[in-house]
Parts: sequence; structure tokens; C-alpha cells
Amino acid sequence: MQSLGIGLIGTGFMGKAHAIAWANANRVLGGLPPVRLELLCDTPIEKAEAMAGQFGFARAIDDWRRLVDDPAVDVVSITTPNALHRPIAEAALAAGKHVWCEKPLGVTLADGEAMAAAAEASGRTTLVGYNYLRNPAFQHARRLIEEGRIGRLFHLRGFVDEDYQADGSLPWTWRSRRAEAGLGALGDIGVHLVSLLTGLGGPIVSVVAEAAAAYPTRPLPEGGEASVENEDIASALVRFEAGFHGTLVISRAAWGRKGSLGFEAHGTKGMIRFDQERLNELELYVAEGAKSEAGFRTILTSGEHPPYGAFCPAPGHSLGFNDLKVIEAGELLRTIAGGERARPDFAEALAIERVVYAMAESADRDGSRVAVSAMGG
Amino acid sequence: MQSLGIGLIGTGFMGKAHAIAWANANRVLGGLPPVRLELLCDTPIEKAEAMAGQFGFARAIDDWRRLVDDPAVDVVSITTPNALHRPIAEAALAAGKHVWCEKPLGVTLADGEAMAAAAEASGRTTLVGYNYLRNPAFQHARRLIEEGRIGRLFHLRGFVDEDYQADGSLPWTWRSRRAEAGLGALGDIGVHLVSLLTGLGGPIVSVVAEAAAAYPTRPLPEGGEASVENEDIASALVRFEAGFHGTLVISRAAWGRKGSLGFEAHGTKGMIRFDQERLNELELYVAEGAKSEAGFRTILTSGEHPPYGAFCPAPGHSLGFNDLKVIEAGELLRTIAGGERARPDFAEALAIERVVYAMAESADRDGSRVAVSAMGG
Amino acid sequence: MQSLGIGLIGTGFMGKAHAIAWANANRVLGGLPPVRLELLCDTPIEKAEAMAGQFGFARAIDDWRRLVDDPAVDVVSITTPNALHRPIAEAALAAGKHVWCEKPLGVTLADGEAMAAAAEASGRTTLVGYNYLRNPAFQHARRLIEEGRIGRLFHLRGFVDEDYQADGSLPWTWRSRRAEAGLGALGDIGVHLVSLLTGLGGPIVSVVAEAAAAYPTRPLPEGGEASVENEDIASALVRFEAGFHGTLVISRAAWGRKGSLGFEAHGTKGMIRFDQERLNELELYVAEGAKSEAGFRTILTSGEHPPYGAFCPAPGHSLGFNDLKVIEAGELLRTIAGGERARPDFAEALAIERVVYAMAESADRDGSRVAVSAMGG
Amino acid sequence: MQSLGIGLIGTGFMGKAHAIAWANANRVLGGLPPVRLELLCDTPIEKAEAMAGQFGFARAIDDWRRLVDDPAVDVVSITTPNALHRPIAEAALAAGKHVWCEKPLGVTLADGEAMAAAAEASGRTTLVGYNYLRNPAFQHARRLIEEGRIGRLFHLRGFVDEDYQADGSLPWTWRSRRAEAGLGALGDIGVHLVSLLTGLGGPIVSVVAEAAAAYPTRPLPEGGEASVENEDIASALVRFEAGFHGTLVISRAAWGRKGSLGFEAHGTKGMIRFDQERLNELELYVAEGAKSEAGFRTILTSGEHPPYGAFCPAPGHSLGFNDLKVIEAGELLRTIAGGERARPDFAEALAIERVVYAMAESADRDGSRVAVSAMGG
Repeated sequence: MQSLGIGLIGTGFMGKAHAIAWANANRVLGGLPPVRLELLCDTPIEKAEAMAGQFGFARAIDDWRRLVDDPAVDVVSITTPNALHRPIAEAALAAGKHVWCEKPLGVTLADGEAMAAAAEASGRTTLVGYNYLRNPAFQHARRLIEEGRIGRLFHLRGFVDEDYQADGSLPWTWRSRRAEAGLGALGDIGVHLVSLLTGLGGPIVSVVAEAAAAYPTRPLPEGGEASVENEDIASALVRFEAGFHGTLVISRAAWGRKGSLGFEAHGTKGMIRFDQERLNELELYVAEGAKSEAGFRTILTSGEHPPYGAFCPAPGHSLGFNDLKVIEAGELLRTIAGGERARPDFAEALAIERVVYAMAESADRDGSRVAVSAMGG
Repeated sequence: MQSLGIGLIGTGFMGKAHAIAWANANRVLGGLPPVRLELLCDTPIEKAEAMAGQFGFARAIDDWRRLVDDPAVDVVSITTPNALHRPIAEAALAAGKHVWCEKPLGVTLADGEAMAAAAEASGRTTLVGYNYLRNPAFQHARRLIEEGRIGRLFHLRGFVDEDYQADGSLPWTWRSRRAEAGLGALGDIGVHLVSLLTGLGGPIVSVVAEAAAAYPTRPLPEGGEASVENEDIASALVRFEAGFHGTLVISRAAWGRKGSLGFEAHGTKGMIRFDQERLNELELYVAEGAKSEAGFRTILTSGEHPPYGAFCPAPGHSLGFNDLKVIEAGELLRTIAGGERARPDFAEALAIERVVYAMAESADRDGSRVAVSAMGG
Repeated sequence: MQSLGIGLIGTGFMGKAHAIAWANANRVLGGLPPVRLELLCDTPIEKAEAMAGQFGFARAIDDWRRLVDDPAVDVVSITTPNALHRPIAEAALAAGKHVWCEKPLGVTLADGEAMAAAAEASGRTTLVGYNYLRNPAFQHARRLIEEGRIGRLFHLRGFVDEDYQADGSLPWTWRSRRAEAGLGALGDIGVHLVSLLTGLGGPIVSVVAEAAAAYPTRPLPEGGEASVENEDIASALVRFEAGFHGTLVISRAAWGRKGSLGFEAHGTKGMIRFDQERLNELELYVAEGAKSEAGFRTILTSGEHPPYGAFCPAPGHSLGFNDLKVIEAGELLRTIAGGERARPDFAEALAIERVVYAMAESADRDGSRVAVSAMGG
Repeated sequence: MQSLGIGLIGTGFMGKAHAIAWANANRVLGGLPPVRLELLCDTPIEKAEAMAGQFGFARAIDDWRRLVDDPAVDVVSITTPNALHRPIAEAALAAGKHVWCEKPLGVTLADGEAMAAAAEASGRTTLVGYNYLRNPAFQHARRLIEEGRIGRLFHLRGFVDEDYQADGSLPWTWRSRRAEAGLGALGDIGVHLVSLLTGLGGPIVSVVAEAAAAYPTRPLPEGGEASVENEDIASALVRFEAGFHGTLVISRAAWGRKGSLGFEAHGTKGMIRFDQERLNELELYVAEGAKSEAGFRTILTSGEHPPYGAFCPAPGHSLGFNDLKVIEAGELLRTIAGGERARPDFAEALAIERVVYAMAESADRDGSRVAVSAMGG
């Protein structure tokens, strides 16, 4: 297999996660195209150079435009603030690069639409960073549902809760202004939840929703208070194309929750429950066998749940957050090499975002029903 | 204190629970008016007599009309099928008796309104069987919220799940027909959830809701299938008068859940979580102290959580379901003896039911917003 | 069936539990001999009279010797401090009464031996208050093991932990002096653990043990410190007659544990885990079925686990501590009425105590092996 | 900093873990000497070459003797079967290399002694693969204890359970023969437990122990049965130099346990509980504050628990098994670069092993007390 040159833009939380992912995908999973860590971009250049040294990239640069045009770069990883996702992705695709972009696509739905159109026009491979989909526990849940292990689904509940905005004394930032940040918790974490729920239950066709700021204003560093314009908390009732309804609760102000993201899938023959805070566990109840022994079982992930075994042959020894990103990089590489398409690409990520924009729209309209298909162009 | 004569109608699940409650309220809690187990009513009379022997009632009878008129009876316990709640309650109140009635009040909202009016007119003490409110763990949660321990509430989530209708092969019964059974899961268990959430968050003013049958039809014993007319599953977004919104999920078709009923109360300073399946545990997170030690703590109920200590001086030794009913009977006796009013009386129970009728109405109207105040007369 | 007159001595923690148990055994379980709550003994007489009123006993008395001789009394419940167990039991048996006695039998092993001999000589029914054996979850575990559901046992681990002596500032009392209190944690709670483990694994034949005081001295109320002479903490390796070994850990100084008592039973086909702090749950792992779905299942007790259904027909609605005592009283009544013998009687309780005395002996002898059969006369 | 050349011997479970660790230590943790993945050894050479390609090593080889002599290699990673640990380590140290060796040191205690002596003589840095010590949750527990957060320790309980030998139909292998495999579960996993307990409680001075095979014989592939000569299950009472006792339970035949390894540390002011199956959680109870709110809190690891933050800035997002090995490699590199010494080196690992050999000795001698200092030369 021909090797692929990687260009990574950003060295923060997700930048580092991408760097680790690129360096380890083939090392752990095997059978993938080899990669060259070619070019790392950040500003100022001193930072880029220092991180290139640490992350193992051959070169550093402080101008993303030159990165996307660099002939040694075949794949561009975008981990910048959201407002840069669109211009970088468009330029990279125009330059013939494959693109791995963190979620959400952009700051507005129009950004996402433009990005999906650019991806379509380019013919290149795109992938959006919905890393929680890569969890072997989640993939097993999806397989169980597809195989009918819990029967026909008739209710699907989702939750995503963190507490990084729970403290009312945290200062007001641009993240609280709609013009710059776009959505609040819906864009930060709500999209992750939609990715899981539609992964299990298929498309969502309409929503009714509520949204709220935990604090109407937040303190300005220079004194005084400024309004919080986007939501910290959102809740929705949604209808799935498959004919059942579900619920979503979303909060970035949920004290005590650090990375809680999960679901309950209720079916005619059983139930599955999952929470990413215990990412190596899946709870399954199946209505079969002796009633005196029936109960939710806690399944620990293992080699029975691919690709766990590529990380560790011993069961119950646990993957971690960065491992999910390794799997994601591996799926992108497999796609580029001609394998089954990794998901969600830009078009599918746009479909995910339409759902959260429909929620925001419904919340703005006093909880009226909003069709997901009505969102955007 | 003068003793009170008890008349109990019904000897099934809740009939037995009332019998145990009456026999133990003063034995366990102390300081209450003594009771005489006077009269037990069921049909046929042989059954009534046998159960009177077992439950310790002095006499048996097979006609509830004679029970409510019996001069030795001061308090009437109603644990019959729902359709009898209203006529019995009205007759008992008219006869000057105090009434303890199982939830829901009747089969329709009009039943409940009539019962509340009759209670108001009678001047007697009424209490409706919202036993889960009596749990010391719930009472402690309520106290913590009232005292501001988790700050101002900004999100309140509730769930109630059992699986007694999860099996699609269970036969069609009158419980699936609206005319006879009224609401489905909303009336069976949804009202319990509303009692908890309004107990914590205050009145609910409007709702949008979805409802669904787990199975559109169920088999008839004589062959063929009949339609299920009421809901097995319901979900709602609700607005509290206090200015925040919440969510409710309700299912009697939730495989694996046996008595799950609880909430998450999200506030500006912390969170409380509770699930009745672990009725002796309360989970509390408070945003204080060293961050390296922050976490949800699992509080086991004890003498610190009255009236636990009246049952057992040792902490963490657990109350059970029937103990909640003992506490409830005690609160009714205390009210009759002139103490603080036990809640919810018929009027307050009617307010609880208006919320679930509003949900049913919203679900019937495609999830449109329904004001709780618009329900009923 | 002829009714039985009950005489209860003591009105504290266990006295109240016995009173509740006697009042409810037939009410809940049915089919038992009726009982009359005849006589309640405590000092001073005013207290006895007040509690007789609350507990529903016909008469009160302040002299246990007259209670055991009272012709209206058929069964004597002993819930006094341990030092009185022996004289009361001997007198009651001599007077031809059946006896229900709280554990441990007495203050020394010799006390227990004398009591077992007196029981044997009397021909009356005896039962010792090992209430945790009555838990439907425990009984189900025992049944699963007997039926071979987890195969041949090869390891059995037990734990019992509370924290009522964990606080070093608690004052020295007679409970810390060997002459008056006998054993420490071994007698308080260790015997409960032995009752569970021998109930599951059969007789224990030898032990090696360690014991320790959490604090070598405790403060005297009048100032100064006094030595703690008995153990707060004990650990043992034990050999079962059936050919495998097990472990016991016992502490009354285990901060945060309130009523933790349980076991792990390891077998050739599976494992069972139980903890009384979650008394309505049993964890079961069986090595069968798809490996991808294997996991510990949490079984909630229900009507599938007799006699749970006599308390509540709804599954997962939870029994409490006092309910275990109701079951115990029921087993005693069934025995007196000629049914299967309730266990452990005085002789079997003596066998349980020999194990903890062997532990204490081993601990005194630097952890040397002590044969259980070597303990006592 | 000068770069270090890595030579890795073995490509199985731990070989891959070392490869991942070497490739990521500086990438994740930063500030470490850079490493070159120089040479990978396995047999046959085709396998070594394939894995070198996947793992990113520059060269492959099939003779470990040439690897340890290779001038480009500065550090040797030993992940071979146990019988090769000693010869490789001795040769590597003699050649002036630093050595990272998987546990246990060798097949016998004499092996370990020779290795410790060789390490001492060489003056090179050694580290043994006690990866569970690296868990930020464990390190936090250790810190809490050192800082006195739970007071003076008075009881320490440990457990390590997996089920890879629980199935009686698994064939007999060399691992069941003492001459080749040495200890059974004590050497496989018992040493990990000792590393945790002595890490928390300090040195263990004496033990009494039991040991057992889950099955006395196992089937031979060619038919018939052969004896199992070493233990699948072991239990011990141990005395710590600090003056308290503890317990250990160890099983490789514990159905349902996949990676359970942990402890309960009981102190005068609180308790800490940990289980590696939930490696991102620590349970802490501290006896302080309102009793009505006291309970075990579940702490999710985060940036508050170094070096978690180097992997992920978001709290509660979870590390995995391989991350522990990354931390371990980082500690070795820091030591080589002149930083604080990573632990346990060969001498300290020998001290850990003396404890399990003392257990085996005690078990062989019917549970007699064995002084740890009496083990070995």
C-alpha cells in the first residue's frame, strides 16, 4: 500500500487526539495504509515546531493555507475552532485532499451545507469526528439491535451531560454569543447524541424541543454581566422515520457529569443501556430464560467486540477515549484504501446537524413541531 | 386519643398493603391515634371472611355500601378497581368518613373533579395513595432542594418504567380499552412520576407529549386480535411554574425495569438522582470542596432521614415497599388527629392528574402545547 | 389452628423488630397459627406499659421470670442484652415454652452449650435470630447453588462491615471488655456472616485468623483512656468440610459501610455475589450462551423468589429489614405447627458460634490453625 | 536530550503494549527523551519483520542475543515467556542496556534474585511492568492515604480476579506444571495485587495462606488427564510492617471477572475502594460533614489526577489499559534521563515476589505462618 501524508491543523485537545490517532492506527489495528506525519500547523510557529517535535511530525508551519496546498499532504485533519472548519475544508477538498474534520461542520447550518456540497463535488473521502460511534460497546449495541436481539424498537432515549458550563461564576465568552459560536450545548455535545441515536434508530424526521440557558447572564472579565444567547440545556421529543418516538436530554450544565453520553433502547424483546462514562460496559436485558434469573447483565467489552482485541487480547481491560480516535483514523484510512465507507461523511454529518438545528428552531418557536427536512436549503 | 375504626375495601395488592399499613402505623411510628380494624369488604363473602381472619379485621362484608355506612367505621380505605373509586369515595364522604383512596382518583378527569368537589364539601380528611412520596430518601431530596443545597433548579428529569405490559403475547384485556380503563401507563404509573416531580419542582403549567402503544393490537383469548387504545409509553416536555423545563418518560413496556421511578434534579450548585428500584439510596453531587475528590455520593438512608429511625435504628438496613404505606397511613392518622395535613388530598391529586390528562391531550393533538389549567372543568 | 400466646422481652432495636414480626407474620404470609400478643416485658414498668400500648400487647410486666412462667405465654422472644439470653432461655425452656432468641446465644461459648443442651432436653422449638438467612435473595442463591447452577463450589468469600465502632472518639463501654461482652465484632456481626457462608457451603472445619482493635484504647467518659479488649476487625481463612477454602473479613469499624453483609460464591460454572446493603438484588454470572453477551446480571427479587410475593405481587418493589424478621417469625410458627424445622435452632446456632470462637482462638494464638470441633466441651 | 534506541523482544499481548507505549510516551506526556524504535525481535523472522512494519520499528531480528548486543539499542523491553526473562535481562544488563521487563521476574525466586543482583551490579536502570500502579486513580488513592485523608490505616483488603482458567474443559498446558511455569495465579496476577497493596500499606512481613487448583486435573489434547500442579486460587492473611493486617484473594478461575484488581483501604477517618474493571473510578468515603449526606462518592479521574490531563483535558473521558503502559514507559524514560526513580526496579520487584512465594510456601505447609524475609537467599 502507498503511504499517505498527514497534515494536521491544531494542537489542542482534539489536535493531540488526532496526532495520537494517526500515529497509532496502523500500529494497533494493522493492515492499513502506512502514514507519514508530514506537517503540523499551529500559531505561533514556535508552538507548531515544539508540538511537531512532541507529536512526531516531520515539519511545522503556521499557515493552514500552505498546509492544505502542500504536495506531501494527502489527508488534512481539521481540529481548529469551529469558525475555521469551513474555509479549511473547502480549500483542502479543492486541493484534492481527503479531510478528517472535527464536529460540528461549521458555525451555521449554511456552513455545513457548503461543506457537504464541496465534499460531493471533490470526490474525496471525508469523515467527521463522531468518535463515540467507534466504541466497540456502541458497535455491539448496534449489532444486537440490527440482529433483532431486543426485537422491534419502540422507544429510544438519549442523554448527554457534562458540567463544563455548570458553574455560574465562569466568565462570559464568545461561546455564549450566537453570531460567533452558533448553537450552544446542541452543537457542542448534542450532535454526538444525535449521532448515536440515529446510528441505532435511523433517521429522525421531526422534533419538538425546549432550550434554556443555565444562567441568563454571565460575568464579564471587565466587570458587569453579558447575556447568554445560546442554550446550556435542551430537551426534545423526536420522531424516527421507523415509526417510534424518542427523547433527548442535553446539558453542559449538569453538575457531576463529566462525559455522560448514552441511551436506552427499548424493544419488544429486551433493552440495552449504555453510558460513555463507563465506556467499556454495555447493559443488556433480554426477555428469555428463567424469570427467576432475569436481570440486566453488565457486559464488559473484550475481543468479542471488535476491534477491542486489536488493542488488548485480555477481556475487560478497558479502552480509553484516545483509543476511539485511533479506531476512527483507522476507518478513514480503510475508506481511502478503498474499503467500506467510514461514516459519517460530510453529507451524513449535515443530516445529524439538521436535527439539532431543528431542535433549536422548535425551541425558538415555543416547542412547535419542526420537520428536520425543513432545515436548511 | 380516641381510637378510629377502619373499613377497608379490597384485598388484592393494595388491599393487603393497606391492611399492613393500618396494623403497623402506630406500632412502628408511635404517638398516633389507635385504630380498630373493624370491617373488611370483598366478594364473595367467603373471601372477605378469610382475609379478615388473616389481616386481623373484626368483621367481613361483601357490600361496600354497607361498609361506608357502618357506624363503627371512621376511615374508609379504597383499594378497588379504579371504576369504583368515585362511587365509594362519594358515598363514604357523604357518610362523614375520612377516605384513603388509591390512585388515580377515577377513570376520567371528570371523576376526579367530582371526587375533589365531594371532599371539599364534606370537610373530611382525604389522602390519595402516592406512597413513593413517603420514602425517606425522597423526603430528604425534597429537603435538600428546599434548603438550597443544590442551588436553583434549572432542569428536572423524571422516569417511571416497569415491564408488566412489555410482553406482546399478553392477552388483550379491558385495561387496553379507553372507555373502561381510561389512560394507560399515564394513569397507572405516570401519575406517580408527576407526584414526585411536582413535589420537587412545584406546579407544571404546560406540556407537549408523545404517546404510543408498544403493540397496536394484542391477542384475544378467544382468538384474533383487538386494538390497544391507550398508551404503554409516553414522553413529555413540561414547563414548571418556577420557570424551568423538564422531561418525563413513562413506560409500562420497559423490559427489565420492575419498579424504576425516579428523577434527576439539576441545580446551580449540584445534582440529586434517585431511583425507587434502589429505594434506600440517594445520589448527591455538590459542587464544593477539592475538585480531585468531587463525585456523586451514594447516601444510604438511616435515622438521619426521618422516619427511617422508627423502623430501624441501624443505618443502611433498608426499608421496603410496605413500609412506605405504613408511613402513609401514619400521615393520614396524624392529619385526622389535627396535625399537619397529609398530601396529596383529593384536590391536590386532581392537580396531579390534570398533568397526565394534558399529556394525553397533547399526544392526541400531535404534540401541540397544552396548558394544564385547560384540562377539565 | 390453636392460637399461640407471645411473650416478648425487650423493646429496643430487636424488641421492636420482634413485635412487628409477631404482629405481621400471619397477616403477610397466611396459613400460620394465629398469635396473641400477650405479654411484654421491660423495665421500668412504665416503659413496658407504654410500649405494650404501642406494640399491641395485652399486658406489660417488668420481671422476665414472671413472663416465662405466665400460662398464657407459649412462645418467648428474647431480645435483651446478651448476658440475659442464657438465664431467660433456660427458664423459658424449663417452663415448657418455645423460644426465639436473638444472636449470639450468650456471652461465652459455655453459655451457648448450656442453652443448646437445655433446648435438647426440653423438646421445645428454638430459633435464633439469623434474620439475613430469610432474605429471598439469599434463599435464591442457596437454591441456585444446590441445583448446581454455578457448578461445584471452589471458593467462598464473605464480608460483613458496619461502621458503628469506626469513630475513635466514641467512648469506652462495657462492650469493649471481654468479661462482659465476650467477643467483639465476631460476636456482633461475624456470626451473621458465618450463618450465610455455612448456609451456602456447609460446615467449616478449621480456621486461621487475625483480629485487631481499630483503636487500642477508647476515652472514658470521666476522662482518661481504657483498653479495648476485643476485636473490631477480624479476618480468617477457613476450610469447608466439602473440600474448598474460603475467606471472611469482618469489621465494625469500616467507615461508610452501614449494613454490608454478603458473599461471593465461585463455582465451576458461574459466580453469585450478594450484599445486604442492596438486599433486593442478586448478581449472577453463568458461563453459558454467547460470549459477546456474557456478564453479571442483576436480578431484582420478585414473586419468583418466595416468599417475596406474599409481601408484594409486583416485582422489584423491595422488601426491607423488618420484613426479614416477619419471615423468620413465620418460619418459627410453621415449625411449632409441625412443619419443616426452622433453622438455626440452638444446636445449629452453637455450631455457628464455634466457628467465630475458633477464629478468636486462632487470632490469640498468632494465626495458628484451630479445628472448629476443638472449640468448647 | 539525546535520543534512546529501543529494542523490543516479543510481539504478543505485552509486546504490542510495549510498542504502543514506546511510540507514545513522549507524544502524550511530553518533556521526555526522544526514542528511536530500533529493533524488534521475534521468531520466525518473517513475523518479526511484519510486526516491525506494523509497530514502526526500523529493523527486525530473530535472535534476542544479537538484539541485546546491538549498539543502536539503549533500552531493552522484555515481553517474552517468563522462562526467558532472566537470560535476556542478564545479557542486556551485562551489555550495558537499561531494561524494562514484564512481571514476574523469572520462573523461580532464584531467578528473581539473580536478576536483582545483576541489576545492582550493572548500575543500569531497570523497571518491571507493574502497569496497574500507573493508573492515576491508584496514584490518587496513594496520595490520599499519604496525606492522611482517611487517617491511619487499620485494614487493607485486596482482590484480583480473572476467569481465564475458570473453564474446566480448557486443556492442560505447561502453565499447569510447576517446573516450567513456577507459580500459578500467584505469579500471573497475585504479584500485581501485592504491588498495589504494598504501594499503599508498605512492606508485608509475614503471611498465612491457602491455595487450590480449581480442577485437580485438566484434559490432555491427546486424551486422558494430567495433574494441575500450581494454584488457580489463593487466599492469604498478611501482616504489614506498619502494624495492621490485611487479606488477599486471588483467582484466575473467577467466572465473570475479566480484569478485577483492587482493594479496600480502611482507615480511622475513611475508606477508599478501587477496582481496575472500572479503572477511571475511585470510591472514597470520608467521615466528615453532615451525616445525612455521608456516602461513598465515586470520583471520575480527570486532570486533577496526573498524568490524566496529558491524555485528555476533559474530565471523565477515560483512560484505557494501554495508556497505563504509556505512563510506565514515560516513568522509565524520566528515570533514565536522571529524574526520580521509577518503581519497582528489579530489587523492589523481588520484594513483591517474595510475598507471593511466602504465600505458596505457607499454603504448602498447611497455612503455617511464613516470614517474607525467610524467602530466598
